[in-house]
Amino acid sequence: MRYELYYWPSIQGRGEFVRLALEDAGANYVDVARERGTAGMMAMMGGGTIATPPFAPPFLKAGKLVIGQTANILFYLGSRHGLAPKAEAGRLWLHQLQLTITDLVVEIHDTHHPLGPTLYYEDQRAPAKKRAAEFWAERVPKYLGYFETLLRQRKQAYINGRKVTYVDLSLFQIIAGLRYAFPKHMNAYEHSIPALVALHDRVAARPNIEAYLASDRRIPFNEDGIFRCYKALDA
Amino acid sequence: MRYELYYWPSIQGRGEFVRLALEDAGANYVDVARERGTAGMMAMMGGGTIATPPFAPPFLKAGKLVIGQTANILFYLGSRHGLAPKAEAGRLWLHQLQLTITDLVVEIHDTHHPLGPTLYYEDQRAPAKKRAAEFWAERVPKYLGYFETLLRQRKQAYINGRKVTYVDLSLFQIIAGLRYAFPKHMNAYEHSIPALVALHDRVAARPNIEAYLASDRRIPFNEDGIFRCYKALDA
Repeated sequence: MRYELYYWPSIQGRGEFVRLALEDAGANYVDVARERGTAGMMAMMGGGTIATPPFAPPFLKAGKLVIGQTANILFYLGSRHGLAPKAEAGRLWLHQLQLTITDLVVEIHDTHHPLGPTLYYEDQRAPAKKRAAEFWAERVPKYLGYFETLLRQRKQAYINGRKVTYVDLSLFQIIAGLRYAFPKHMNAYEHSIPALVALHDRVAARPNIEAYLASDRRIPFNEDGIFRCYKALDA
Repeated sequence: MRYELYYWPSIQGRGEFVRLALEDAGANYVDVARERGTAGMMAMMGGGTIATPPFAPPFLKAGKLVIGQTANILFYLGSRHGLAPKAEAGRLWLHQLQLTITDLVVEIHDTHHPLGPTLYYEDQRAPAKKRAAEFWAERVPKYLGYFETLLRQRKQAYINGRKVTYVDLSLFQIIAGLRYAFPKHMNAYEHSIPALVALHDRVAARPNIEAYLASDRRIPFNEDGIFRCYKALDA
């Protein structure tokens, strides 16, 4: 089956968590907006043309199904493409981890948009500074400490054992993104998360991921996505 | 099976979305912290005693499974208790809707905590005012407009047709909570969401829900949860 991924064409964003899974799996997919623009995507969301209109991108068309919400898409793809266990207990556990990553992604985005997504960063610099400071003081240790502990307890290559999962790919993205957005903070903090750093490197070295990262399909980080390099927030 | 629900005992919060489902289903469950305090809950999260430690409450012990993340718990319970379709396509669609509600809940919480959960509301009143204003101007119409449209298109009693789902119960909670937290704003806005208001009333009248709401198991709304009545934010 050829999947159709619908996401904004100029950012990594939430869509990137899906792109990484599709790429690692070697799945047959088209990144629709990057090939054909966003009109089709907007029509599927707002046009009253489908029975299950997504609220927002990313969403995946898989045959007749239109699946929205990043973690939901990964839940669907994971066990179909060897990126999650097939049995229910394992699927629920990985999904729980992915939803925790989702919560972290919201907080990362809110370091530059504490007043919400409808105002520009430039109109919320002061609260952003405060939010970012609290984020690094309290929230990063809590979230990344949790995943670091799980990895250390597992004592295996990946978070669920010997086989890679979409959660590992997402944790790679978190580390890569935080390094881009907060180079000073990460430089100071990374010594606390050696298992996560090793996981990042292990994922980056997977053949399909390595090829993807070197390709033009991997959009560079920029200041329009979730991970943004604003020096004022990285003091 | 007797479920064990682990959540903070003095707030509705995220746990309430699970309580509503358990109550409507007439499921056999114990709200552990309300009966025995929070020590057991904290031990399961941080004690290294279980293989799948949740990051945060709520979580549900279902036999040998320990399931965290509100939407994940509802995904597990839904099709087992007649609150979701059994087939995959329907389960994924409802889960997508629940995850969108989850995103709305984060934004509701951030109206009083735009700088994050580690500072008190009293230390972020000014940004909270701005966030709440943007929330009502832009975000409520976007989120509730989406669900209102789905309900009107469905033209049936519930969001997925004739049978109630956990998403309907959650939408009831959103309406009830917003009325508590923002009475002035809701009074002005509700005429725009007649289908959602009718759904709220329909859910409230379901026998098990009606009994629950009248019981002492339903913790009153207060200023410690997601929905908080801060007059300064309801201007």
